Amino acid sequence: MIKVGIIGGTGYTGIELLRLLHNHSQVTVIAISSRSEAGQRVDKMFPSLAGQCDLVFSLPDDVILNQCEVIFFATPHGVAMKSVGGFIKQGIKVIDLGADFRLNDTVEYQKWYGSEHTQDDLLSSAIYGLCEVNREQIKNATLVANPGCYPTAIQLALKPLIDNKLIDLSNIIADCKSGVSGAGRGVNQATLLCEVSESFKAYGVSGHRHYPEIKQELALLAGESVGLTFVPHLVPMIRGMQATLYVDLLDGNTEVQSVFAEAYKDEHFVTVLDAGIMPETRSVKSSNFCQIAVQKAPDSNKLIIVSVIDNLVKGASGQAIQNMNIMFGLDENTGLEQIGLLP
Amino acid sequence: MIKVGIIGGTGYTGIELLRLLHNHSQVTVIAISSRSEAGQRVDKMFPSLAGQCDLVFSLPDDVILNQCEVIFFATPHGVAMKSVGGFIKQGIKVIDLGADFRLNDTVEYQKWYGSEHTQDDLLSSAIYGLCEVNREQIKNATLVANPGCYPTAIQLALKPLIDNKLIDLSNIIADCKSGVSGAGRGVNQATLLCEVSESFKAYGVSGHRHYPEIKQELALLAGESVGLTFVPHLVPMIRGMQATLYVDLLDGNTEVQSVFAEAYKDEHFVTVLDAGIMPETRSVKSSNFCQIAVQKAPDSNKLIIVSVIDNLVKGASGQAIQNMNIMFGLDENTGLEQIGLLP
Amino acid sequence: MIKVGIIGGTGYTGIELLRLLHNHSQVTVIAISSRSEAGQRVDKMFPSLAGQCDLVFSLPDDVILNQCEVIFFATPHGVAMKSVGGFIKQGIKVIDLGADFRLNDTVEYQKWYGSEHTQDDLLSSAIYGLCEVNREQIKNATLVANPGCYPTAIQLALKPLIDNKLIDLSNIIADCKSGVSGAGRGVNQATLLCEVSESFKAYGVSGHRHYPEIKQELALLAGESVGLTFVPHLVPMIRGMQATLYVDLLDGNTEVQSVFAEAYKDEHFVTVLDAGIMPETRSVKSSNFCQIAVQKAPDSNKLIIVSVIDNLVKGASGQAIQNMNIMFGLDENTGLEQIGLLP
Amino acid sequence: MIKVGIIGGTGYTGIELLRLLHNHSQVTVIAISSRSEAGQRVDKMFPSLAGQCDLVFSLPDDVILNQCEVIFFATPHGVAMKSVGGFIKQGIKVIDLGADFRLNDTVEYQKWYGSEHTQDDLLSSAIYGLCEVNREQIKNATLVANPGCYPTAIQLALKPLIDNKLIDLSNIIADCKSGVSGAGRGVNQATLLCEVSESFKAYGVSGHRHYPEIKQELALLAGESVGLTFVPHLVPMIRGMQATLYVDLLDGNTEVQSVFAEAYKDEHFVTVLDAGIMPETRSVKSSNFCQIAVQKAPDSNKLIIVSVIDNLVKGASGQAIQNMNIMFGLDENTGLEQIGLLP
Repeated sequence: MIKVGIIGGTGYTGIELLRLLHNHSQVTVIAISSRSEAGQRVDKMFPSLAGQCDLVFSLPDDVILNQCEVIFFATPHGVAMKSVGGFIKQGIKVIDLGADFRLNDTVEYQKWYGSEHTQDDLLSSAIYGLCEVNREQIKNATLVANPGCYPTAIQLALKPLIDNKLIDLSNIIADCKSGVSGAGRGVNQATLLCEVSESFKAYGVSGHRHYPEIKQELALLAGESVGLTFVPHLVPMIRGMQATLYVDLLDGNTEVQSVFAEAYKDEHFVTVLDAGIMPETRSVKSSNFCQIAVQKAPDSNKLIIVSVIDNLVKGASGQAIQNMNIMFGLDENTGLEQIGLLP
Repeated sequence: MIKVGIIGGTGYTGIELLRLLHNHSQVTVIAISSRSEAGQRVDKMFPSLAGQCDLVFSLPDDVILNQCEVIFFATPHGVAMKSVGGFIKQGIKVIDLGADFRLNDTVEYQKWYGSEHTQDDLLSSAIYGLCEVNREQIKNATLVANPGCYPTAIQLALKPLIDNKLIDLSNIIADCKSGVSGAGRGVNQATLLCEVSESFKAYGVSGHRHYPEIKQELALLAGESVGLTFVPHLVPMIRGMQATLYVDLLDGNTEVQSVFAEAYKDEHFVTVLDAGIMPETRSVKSSNFCQIAVQKAPDSNKLIIVSVIDNLVKGASGQAIQNMNIMFGLDENTGLEQIGLLP
Repeated sequence: MIKVGIIGGTGYTGIELLRLLHNHSQVTVIAISSRSEAGQRVDKMFPSLAGQCDLVFSLPDDVILNQCEVIFFATPHGVAMKSVGGFIKQGIKVIDLGADFRLNDTVEYQKWYGSEHTQDDLLSSAIYGLCEVNREQIKNATLVANPGCYPTAIQLALKPLIDNKLIDLSNIIADCKSGVSGAGRGVNQATLLCEVSESFKAYGVSGHRHYPEIKQELALLAGESVGLTFVPHLVPMIRGMQATLYVDLLDGNTEVQSVFAEAYKDEHFVTVLDAGIMPETRSVKSSNFCQIAVQKAPDSNKLIIVSVIDNLVKGASGQAIQNMNIMFGLDENTGLEQIGLLP
Repeated sequence: MIKVGIIGGTGYTGIELLRLLHNHSQVTVIAISSRSEAGQRVDKMFPSLAGQCDLVFSLPDDVILNQCEVIFFATPHGVAMKSVGGFIKQGIKVIDLGADFRLNDTVEYQKWYGSEHTQDDLLSSAIYGLCEVNREQIKNATLVANPGCYPTAIQLALKPLIDNKLIDLSNIIADCKSGVSGAGRGVNQATLLCEVSESFKAYGVSGHRHYPEIKQELALLAGESVGLTFVPHLVPMIRGMQATLYVDLLDGNTEVQSVFAEAYKDEHFVTVLDAGIMPETRSVKSSNFCQIAVQKAPDSNKLIIVSVIDNLVKGASGQAIQNMNIMFGLDENTGLEQIGLLP
């Protein structure tokens, strides 16, 4: 059994790691840390674990973490970069669910995250953990930057088109919608049930931190820079994310359905729906799947691509485990076999 | 007191008319019809009326309807066109909340609604009831075609830009989101709570009936045809509608905020939000207001316009009453003064 | 126009007072205070007011409040008792939506609210503002203690039975359910959408602050003490409250339906539903109504009474306005005529 | 691998069986039937299965069902009794998730279900499948009547008290709350999102079909008849069920916490929470667990017991699989190890 540690385990990605790893046949979680909750039983904070988990939160510098073979960081940006290096020196693999190793350019990091990036060397060794894109590099990675949720949904939706050079890269529109869990478990008036339930809104229109990550990775896919308009919205539901993408086909006669089907025919976690069927976020709720549909607009070269994921699974903790599986040479599906919870 | 009748009052626009007219100081509802519920007390179907409403559903051909001064049709398409003529001949004004008189072209009507339009003459006399656009014609109208909800949200968002010739008309994208009440009260597995709650999806991507209406009215505003991509989505909430619009400014330096502020400075029901503030659908829940915000995308000429309405009020019954107020020379706000229900 | 002030207007009862008073023909709100938000526009905090309200939050000791004829306190317990006296000396009437003047016994107050009650004299002059019980005293009151939401729903459900001495007073069970807005707008992890949505739970089982208020008022109604078991629950919705009450009829053959119908036949805001019909909280959403149903259990003398209110209207701000109407000799319904928002 | 069949698989218990069995290491579903959907791919009806399930609905009399070792009936009452006998004669075990074999008395069955019970013999051989009560008989059963959801939540909450003869059996109150999925997937205006969302109500107050089942089973536990008042309510959420029970302790000094802890110390799926902690339905969402808390009311002998389950798992499909595991001598937890989905 692979010994796993989680640093910063009091948020939604933390409990989601615990839930998914609970059913993972090859690992055992030996430590979970929280500076604020150290000493408290984990099942007091997450009552779904009552009777099923004896873990107690440790301090993030507890020596038990040194016994781990892999550590997941589920911490706010700026935390992981400070302590990742020490673990890696001990031969412990690290998967960062936060943003510290996603942007290749430290100037961009400082611009969007408001603090200096102090770990240039680590950054250059980090692999961007979008499994369907970087699988080969992930196999040998010691440090994986787990992608953001919006970047995951958008890249999977565009990859076949970019790989096949089918679209105008200068005019990509990503109208995205996320459940409220994407905003985290932090205490925040803006995400009280009475503030967000029965309502819908755009947010971050003047600039969202996933914007540079999306632009960077699309440019890497394309081999050139892309023009992107990105508007995230908040949906009154707990989980789920949809990206609705609008692009211009270079050739309006392209058979896009088969391009997508071919591109993902061997990917377990990406399902291309039959022509005419649109995905729903609930179809992937609690699962690591991404479902994608494509549809041409009438009377134009506009193509609409829709992708859905569970923001906490394929958009965070599930993908992190998928990365772990790849890094340890396990079957990529291990612990991630479950299908979505419906209804 | 103006005598009002409602034909087809068992759906959500029917009860919404009753709710709003209950607080209207200048009217009295003397009849409400339903073929299927004739003879039943209205408050048995709508328990919010218990103790506050003595109406009984009549048949749609009950003579009491001839005593009305104005009749609202809250019926499925195809119903109003058959009986509107008779009422108009008696001098009764008609406001149709359905689709029978929205499309100017009967060929288009047949294409999208699947049945022949048999009332060419009535159609040519009907006024499209988007108050902020056609107020003058509505004053003297005998037959008003109340706009669809999506068309209302989209037109109000684009009118200042089109009027001022500020955008590329060939490439308009309308990514729209609606609460479930837009699907009506009909029995339908697809709108069961367990099927739509905690989920988000696109629908009607291959063709929605509001598409030709939007194209037609935008073309009338612009004086030329427009290129439109329209994707409606379903949001897990009862009420509320947002249109997120993406257009290309002809001149990226245009001061759009002031264009919008100026355009709507005298419109009671359209509120242009201060720069930097995005609307939420809940802000207009239960009210007749439309809130609009504009935001330029970074690094491009792309402009994002967001508008929100309550689909059952400004998107249906409230706008119908606003039309009635105009038709009868009342203060346009009468009965529509209430602000949104928050939380 | 009666000049109205609101102290502590940043919570849900504050915005609900503003919403309801916006449609009240006889009053004008001239001041609303918030220590933390003084100087800020009210419509920045409550976007439903955008374009419809020019008020700016003042400090709670701003002299403008002295110009009011009536002041609503929408403050946490302990605040009102400190400043109410000054207003009353100036002849300003006060309605406290908080808990400072609900409990007659200062020892009980200290036990449940954790701080000393320093205003014995004011307390003895305060009238408990359950309009359907204390209407006559309210007419001449200068200080009204607006009831809690649970106490309102429970007392209205039991009053006819207690008045007519029909039940065993020693064994009353009140299983109550509240929407999340009852927990207020304060920043609280426990009421984040992701923590309460799609879930149901009991809370405060070991002791809720409304318990002594309910016991006190039921005892006053009965003329003797009562035995009460009270369990509140949290429902994943914004508004609405239901009390399900279980009592033992002294005589199992009592015709309770007619007892209730008779008891409330002249009360505008209390609707007794026909036999066999159960209320739903949505039927009174956004309105000041209380709907009540009674049903005998099979094979026993057990009687089930169900009452529903909107916790923010009849359970808070609406009842406060009803009290104001009574205090100023206005028609009791003024500004409260609207029926529930359905759907 | 045990060959499993499902008859009547188009409802929520059907897809829930498929979801849970998908992760069950010892079984394979070889057939799923639906008279109305025969020939259609299962993943067209349940999009969570897209790409993960190749099953096609068969007719309920398809011969493939004869190859099964166990068949789950997920059918409306009246269906299973007609065909169960044929399968049992072939040595196929049957678990009926419906109501056909729950009531021991065919007269009661006819009274509550409105049709005659024609299978007296089968009925007498059926074992009531509440695993924690009847585990020993289930081991050798060929026909198991899977309990209803309310009966499961209530019996688990009361069993320790009844077994230890601690309460007055004549006065049990069960105030129960269920998510909307309990009403099934049938087309029904009453369970449209717009009809039940943002609302709470009691239903079935004059008589719910689970009432006789609960009374029967509690009487069997107690060895005598019990007095029961049962009021179910509908909660605006998809999954989850809570029973809040009010009973009178014979001795107010009884240490009930330890009675419960002792009673369930070896039961994997029943978790007794620490004193002072109340369960939430979300804690068991998607899992087979039941969480229970007990709390004495102040100033009386009244005891409050609260139990929560997921109505579709421990209240239906999960318990059915637990029964299957027992019948086939498997580890009782097989395929049911997952913890609740939180948030």
